[in-house]
Amino acid sequence: MATTKGFDCNKESKIKRIALSIQYQGSNFSGWQRQKVGHTIQAILEDAIFSLDSSKPAKVVAAGRTDAGVHAAGQVVHFDSFGPIPVHRWPSALNGRLPEAIRVRDSVEQSLDWHACHSAVYRRYRYIIYNGCTPNLFLNPWTWHKYQYQLDEELMEEAAKGLIGMHDFSAFQRSGSNRTHAFTTIQEVKLVRHGDLLVFDIQASGFLYGMVRLLVGQLVSIGEHRLSINDFETRWKLKLRSEVKEAAPARGLCFIRAGYKESIFRENIVFDSFPGFLLLTNDPPERII
Amino acid sequence: MATTKGFDCNKESKIKRIALSIQYQGSNFSGWQRQKVGHTIQAILEDAIFSLDSSKPAKVVAAGRTDAGVHAAGQVVHFDSFGPIPVHRWPSALNGRLPEAIRVRDSVEQSLDWHACHSAVYRRYRYIIYNGCTPNLFLNPWTWHKYQYQLDEELMEEAAKGLIGMHDFSAFQRSGSNRTHAFTTIQEVKLVRHGDLLVFDIQASGFLYGMVRLLVGQLVSIGEHRLSINDFETRWKLKLRSEVKEAAPARGLCFIRAGYKESIFRENIVFDSFPGFLLLTNDPPERII
Repeated sequence: MATTKGFDCNKESKIKRIALSIQYQGSNFSGWQRQKVGHTIQAILEDAIFSLDSSKPAKVVAAGRTDAGVHAAGQVVHFDSFGPIPVHRWPSALNGRLPEAIRVRDSVEQSLDWHACHSAVYRRYRYIIYNGCTPNLFLNPWTWHKYQYQLDEELMEEAAKGLIGMHDFSAFQRSGSNRTHAFTTIQEVKLVRHGDLLVFDIQASGFLYGMVRLLVGQLVSIGEHRLSINDFETRWKLKLRSEVKEAAPARGLCFIRAGYKESIFRENIVFDSFPGFLLLTNDPPERII
Repeated sequence: MATTKGFDCNKESKIKRIALSIQYQGSNFSGWQRQKVGHTIQAILEDAIFSLDSSKPAKVVAAGRTDAGVHAAGQVVHFDSFGPIPVHRWPSALNGRLPEAIRVRDSVEQSLDWHACHSAVYRRYRYIIYNGCTPNLFLNPWTWHKYQYQLDEELMEEAAKGLIGMHDFSAFQRSGSNRTHAFTTIQEVKLVRHGDLLVFDIQASGFLYGMVRLLVGQLVSIGEHRLSINDFETRWKLKLRSEVKEAAPARGLCFIRAGYKESIFRENIVFDSFPGFLLLTNDPPERII
């Protein structure tokens, strides 16, 4: 028994649960989750880990399963490592094997009962709308160019603030989800205009499938004065899913970070690595001539 | 004679010189200038114009002939139009035919003696260095990730300020140029650190072939304390081209705008459409939990 126990302990001690902070540019991927067809971030990451630690096929769990085309600046994932690679070597080892559009920024060892998804107490997403009438290709990969009307951001924020708290958000759930209920707690919403850019941050205990994009679609209708706040409230409070039609495109959405009871990574790695885009067009020109 | 003159005048009045403000993401192009092989911005633009106005092959002239991989936020070009397309229709007509990585932002008619290159009194470039140790893919397309040392931006700016004025800058000219001399007037330099980002702006009457990238390569050596300001000055003042070896990569460089005696486009279109990238990592975290 002692030998067996000793052997088991020894074996146990070789398993390391590794948490990674990763970024990806979602444009060229079919989303997070491994599928039969399409390039998914999960599959690419699992294959890269397996190529370095081939004792067992890797199974990677993410804090948030982002949809096709959605970006991530501070996605948190975990996997179990069985080989000899030291924890701190994973970022450079993986970055050497991953496509440029996926980067590993930090790695730490966690206890085996820690779980990237189940241990998370919040997720934070950002949606950026470019509300200027002139196309700007430097904003294209990260924003929804919506310019038919000057959006009324105060109305939009007022509507969004009404969502704070724990509610049934069935109205903002795309079909195809395997959740048993649609309750989630929205902790914070913030909508700030910087010139022609509208930056919408939303933090919640969890998100339903397609939730942020359906919600932003509704907020834009409110900002264009095509939908009243009252009608918006009726839609979500009465779970009128069939009336919630417009979904904002994936390119404007970014998974900013996941939060845990205790900080996992170096704070400056994970807090907000998605750059704010500052358009200087409103500055007074300082002309030389 | 009268008839001939009348005919000539009539013909003349049909020629319209169109100036465009354009942006491009240089990564996938072999630079501005049409070549026998490779996708160049000039060739793509000329082909798109010819497809809309096929009376004569289009010849497009740019304010600055950017190199392969270099971006432009406010490139100015002109061409002569012979067909019936109204001036203000060119941006949308061209954007429908151009790849997403090239955008036309504005169009105006200029007199036939106005020239995008010869009439320009300055060009302004920006070079962005990302001096943080953690890879950040959202900055990858627009910055040079240089992280071995914390760069000394004050020394770098001091060295750059010494270039202001009219000088022979042969030391910063790549071979392959067809210029007859290497004199140009640097009007302004500015180097600002925003957290891990170093933003270097340089404005001059004109630039030599490869000039900004060679100059930034030298400034980085200074910022790493591998080259003294004195040695740097000796190199460029004595035109020691062979000692100027390190060129900064193209991806960090962007043509910001060209300036003319009179404003050509709407000021907010052309002034600075290259977004500032603001990393929020230094902000105090506002945690919900």
